[in-house]
Amino acid sequence: MSKKIRCGVLGLGRLGYWHAENLSQRVKGAELVAVVDPLEGRAEQVAQELGVPKWSRNPNDVFENPDIDAVAIVTPTSTHAEMIKKAAANGKHIFVEKPITQTLQEADEVIEAIRNNHVFCQVGFMRRFDPAYVEAKKRIEAGDIGKPIYFKGITRDGNTPPPEFIKHSGGLYLDFSIHDYDTARFFLGAEVTSVTALGSVVHNQYVAEFNDVDQALTYLTFDSGAAADVEASRNAAYGYDIRAEIIGTEGSIQIGSLQHHDIKILTKKGCTHDIIPDFPSQFLDAYLLEMASFIECLRNNQKPLVDEYDGKIALNISVAATQSYQKGTTIQLEAIHS
Amino acid sequence: MSKKIRCGVLGLGRLGYWHAENLSQRVKGAELVAVVDPLEGRAEQVAQELGVPKWSRNPNDVFENPDIDAVAIVTPTSTHAEMIKKAAANGKHIFVEKPITQTLQEADEVIEAIRNNHVFCQVGFMRRFDPAYVEAKKRIEAGDIGKPIYFKGITRDGNTPPPEFIKHSGGLYLDFSIHDYDTARFFLGAEVTSVTALGSVVHNQYVAEFNDVDQALTYLTFDSGAAADVEASRNAAYGYDIRAEIIGTEGSIQIGSLQHHDIKILTKKGCTHDIIPDFPSQFLDAYLLEMASFIECLRNNQKPLVDEYDGKIALNISVAATQSYQKGTTIQLEAIHS
Amino acid sequence: MSKKIRCGVLGLGRLGYWHAENLSQRVKGAELVAVVDPLEGRAEQVAQELGVPKWSRNPNDVFENPDIDAVAIVTPTSTHAEMIKKAAANGKHIFVEKPITQTLQEADEVIEAIRNNHVFCQVGFMRRFDPAYVEAKKRIEAGDIGKPIYFKGITRDGNTPPPEFIKHSGGLYLDFSIHDYDTARFFLGAEVTSVTALGSVVHNQYVAEFNDVDQALTYLTFDSGAAADVEASRNAAYGYDIRAEIIGTEGSIQIGSLQHHDIKILTKKGCTHDIIPDFPSQFLDAYLLEMASFIECLRNNQKPLVDEYDGKIALNISVAATQSYQKGTTIQLEAIHS
Amino acid sequence: MSKKIRCGVLGLGRLGYWHAENLSQRVKGAELVAVVDPLEGRAEQVAQELGVPKWSRNPNDVFENPDIDAVAIVTPTSTHAEMIKKAAANGKHIFVEKPITQTLQEADEVIEAIRNNHVFCQVGFMRRFDPAYVEAKKRIEAGDIGKPIYFKGITRDGNTPPPEFIKHSGGLYLDFSIHDYDTARFFLGAEVTSVTALGSVVHNQYVAEFNDVDQALTYLTFDSGAAADVEASRNAAYGYDIRAEIIGTEGSIQIGSLQHHDIKILTKKGCTHDIIPDFPSQFLDAYLLEMASFIECLRNNQKPLVDEYDGKIALNISVAATQSYQKGTTIQLEAIHS
Repeated sequence: MSKKIRCGVLGLGRLGYWHAENLSQRVKGAELVAVVDPLEGRAEQVAQELGVPKWSRNPNDVFENPDIDAVAIVTPTSTHAEMIKKAAANGKHIFVEKPITQTLQEADEVIEAIRNNHVFCQVGFMRRFDPAYVEAKKRIEAGDIGKPIYFKGITRDGNTPPPEFIKHSGGLYLDFSIHDYDTARFFLGAEVTSVTALGSVVHNQYVAEFNDVDQALTYLTFDSGAAADVEASRNAAYGYDIRAEIIGTEGSIQIGSLQHHDIKILTKKGCTHDIIPDFPSQFLDAYLLEMASFIECLRNNQKPLVDEYDGKIALNISVAATQSYQKGTTIQLEAIHS
Repeated sequence: MSKKIRCGVLGLGRLGYWHAENLSQRVKGAELVAVVDPLEGRAEQVAQELGVPKWSRNPNDVFENPDIDAVAIVTPTSTHAEMIKKAAANGKHIFVEKPITQTLQEADEVIEAIRNNHVFCQVGFMRRFDPAYVEAKKRIEAGDIGKPIYFKGITRDGNTPPPEFIKHSGGLYLDFSIHDYDTARFFLGAEVTSVTALGSVVHNQYVAEFNDVDQALTYLTFDSGAAADVEASRNAAYGYDIRAEIIGTEGSIQIGSLQHHDIKILTKKGCTHDIIPDFPSQFLDAYLLEMASFIECLRNNQKPLVDEYDGKIALNISVAATQSYQKGTTIQLEAIHS
Repeated sequence: MSKKIRCGVLGLGRLGYWHAENLSQRVKGAELVAVVDPLEGRAEQVAQELGVPKWSRNPNDVFENPDIDAVAIVTPTSTHAEMIKKAAANGKHIFVEKPITQTLQEADEVIEAIRNNHVFCQVGFMRRFDPAYVEAKKRIEAGDIGKPIYFKGITRDGNTPPPEFIKHSGGLYLDFSIHDYDTARFFLGAEVTSVTALGSVVHNQYVAEFNDVDQALTYLTFDSGAAADVEASRNAAYGYDIRAEIIGTEGSIQIGSLQHHDIKILTKKGCTHDIIPDFPSQFLDAYLLEMASFIECLRNNQKPLVDEYDGKIALNISVAATQSYQKGTTIQLEAIHS
Repeated sequence: MSKKIRCGVLGLGRLGYWHAENLSQRVKGAELVAVVDPLEGRAEQVAQELGVPKWSRNPNDVFENPDIDAVAIVTPTSTHAEMIKKAAANGKHIFVEKPITQTLQEADEVIEAIRNNHVFCQVGFMRRFDPAYVEAKKRIEAGDIGKPIYFKGITRDGNTPPPEFIKHSGGLYLDFSIHDYDTARFFLGAEVTSVTALGSVVHNQYVAEFNDVDQALTYLTFDSGAAADVEASRNAAYGYDIRAEIIGTEGSIQIGSLQHHDIKILTKKGCTHDIIPDFPSQFLDAYLLEMASFIECLRNNQKPLVDEYDGKIALNISVAATQSYQKGTTIQLEAIHS
């Protein structure tokens, strides 16, 4: 296990940069040897900043580099399938941001490529690595709340994106709620059997142009008899608000306090704490921890904790949710077998 | 306004007893002159305990008593319509527990009776009088969160009732969520245009015998463009859990802390506060305040703050929710005009 | 136990009015038959408002009335000794606001009068009746935190009184900290053996004219080996802030959340709840509960839960604290035996 | 500013190891080139683990190494003076754990050595770098609470150390409260003019053997007119409890929530969150941030944010507190000028 995992990062947007930074400086057992971004000069700039020896505008420079063990794919979703297939074909292990691919057919193709090339793949559901979620999972497994029977998830962001982003977001169910769908499976330890999605445009009228909603609600049933509801919202004027609740037969767990700094200001106007303003403030640790886990799994020749099937299943629920909303009906899901 | 309102209470179950106790001891301007309960000896016992001069097993003794100004109807829902109509016919003002009646047709009949007899009617949506709800409403009206665009309500109780109760409960949407439907209207200042109800039996299998659920979710849309989701649950093993959240364009309001006593115990096991165990612990003050408001309105010859139309509208949403759940479709609602 | 306790209230300032209101309307088993206040017209006004049959400007009208069982003395502290002695001489049971008297010698005199006349006396340490304090005491007695070894109390008020009030307040140790001294004894179940008091004028310079402080700290040691610190402050610009903490060998208890309404407002500026603004908001229930307990004890011919010795002991600590601050030394206390 | 600061760490106990780990892996602009520990094999083990090129059992190997720019002194307090003087004499910048030295005379000597050799020195008051403290300071400077007039600090630890540790701890005022003394100066922006220290052995009788206390209280006055109280305790059976409160003329700030993981468990027994168990859980980030700031200051040729005078002043207050406790009197402090 002493060998370092040599990595390349593909895509150097905000999230890609964090992954590069973590791999180059904070993840034990990792070595960042190459960064790639199509934007003129971006890869070179990041490489120099982080002390990365190689940079390129062409992903093939990474895929074809025999010294690279693993790639982190942080490119636009539309390119995920192609990137994963090339990585697999070149024997690289894969970390890919959610969603795994844009379509279910692509998901099947990448799953086959991964299997055929005997590489490992982890999908970027970083919430599973957040210390609060890890602790909650431990408590559930320890039986502290009995059998989990209901999940309630909230994902709200007040940082409204521009129309161009909405256009390519895949819709609110895929963009936001996919995290909660995965988290629901994680905590309930069960698979979704039906999806009913509802939604409205309650404030940001411009999302209607893209047949999207700014306020979404999904109801899920599970093969264990459990159920779940998942709210997504672009209307949290007050900040970034991620909450999860798991009701068990003996108790309940709540995750997510919203508090940012651990201070309170008391004045005549009341007692105030600041609120987590955006997703980096909430999940920077989780991004580091998921990458550390990915590298640790590779060094131990173990399957990552969130794999390509988890990626496909969450995508499947998201696609069903989008359809359910559009058709106004409940969608039954068939089991996906890994 | 110096005249006292002379009252009779019909039905002396737990809730009826509280109303009697409040009217006899704590509500300024009220005088409790008669209590009625069909159970042998119950009315006499309560009358002696509270110092009420008259008691009876027959409601007509109250309706026909010319010295009585107002009645509080806390009898089984199936009798509400008959009680209200008799009260109205005898010129008594009416406080009636929710739901106003069992059916919408009955609701129309009592509305007509109330109008024809020029009496006032208040329906027992006590949450509107809870200090936290009153404060939240004030804040919304002061513009503190901008325009309200989403309501999220939770009503959970861990005190599972016996099958016989479930049988006559009207189902979870009517029994629990009706409070949240009313609260949603109260905070959003808008009327429901569509109802989609979902639900499951996730734990208490016996409720399935009555085609009921133990975990319910309702999605509502409003004529203002707002929306809402409302969860009801019989699975809060940890206590009694009532929460409300109103998202506005500029901020959000959260109601409901669950904390019972204002103390925390810190041990090696963690920091613990106790949880509100049941609805009396949560809403005893609200029951007093709603009755005080009812009496105050009567003394000022004013319409109560929650009237028979509010009662009918909430019933209408509950009936639609129950239908929606049973049929698996969204129900469109037409406006009810007062 | 069916007999009602017939009461008179002496002194109808803010606190006296509450006691009168509670005795006339909310305390089972009590009957308010007379109110007294030296201010022209005040007693009559209150009597009419609350429906009290007798009123007077002369306390003797109450002491000499053979139909009165008990008096609540809410007059200026300087008159307490005289009032208590007259009440005792006339066989009236006594509720007296804190401090029991102005001097320790007076305290000894009233204790003798109470003993000789076989009447009961309760001193107004209402915190002992606050539901949070009662619950904390229960938890301590149940052994939830092991043996209590340290008490930490805070009494802060931001409602700065006028100089005239400060002049007659007895100083911050007597005016504020006396409550915490009593609470410390209550929770630790032990007696104070030494008192060290420190203090400063950190903001309200005008209190210096009266040799008073606006920020006080007292350190207490107890015969059980426990210790305590007690802060008092007139500088809580944000509201009324009462906290208590009891450290035990196995854990700790914290009392006092400061939150007023059970709602939170979330905006870009943060998450805010309002703060208890003043002592009525904090302790109105406790005032009612202490009076209810007083009446209940009388009806059962039982000694009240906080008696004249508790009153004297708390006064003794307060006097010692004031001396300690003035002399800059620690004061040793001798045990007071009841 | 592109040059890396080449560092050596002296002393590889728990805290020394963290500093070494941070300097080798997480602090931008730092390079850890040597580690030293007198324990056979310890330095080599750490060097190999962290990839540090040089290791030794002799600090002189670091002092005499011309390639080293700065040292972190994490050796026993009794050696601080010698280490600092040697480091200064060899032109090394200095990071030293608190307290700066064991005696005030030593403090004066090292201050002279630092000045004469034109090196920089930072003392390990890491709380100043904790994000909550930084934010609180910002808010105070922004005027959010008006002028700061009172500081209240609590440092409690339930992890009772062995007698051998107590013997060399310097006493509770020096071991624990020194942090709060520094924090009080930091927030109040003022210097201490008098110190009164009180204390007791309320639980851990064995500390009495060393004339120490397990529960301490210090009262401080400041040249600005402000005051402070500082509690230290070895009796927090429930965990590690650090709190600070700053009262200003317009409001107050509270720091320290005690909550460890951001989850709550709700069961019939109540709502529970876990508590920060020990100081690493509370301050690991702060240790990283103080070191990052030290390196950043060196790279910019700037004086560190907490320097040798801060170190001496805090030591001075601690020594005065210990004397005050032992003599039972208030100690006046003279100003220390930098």
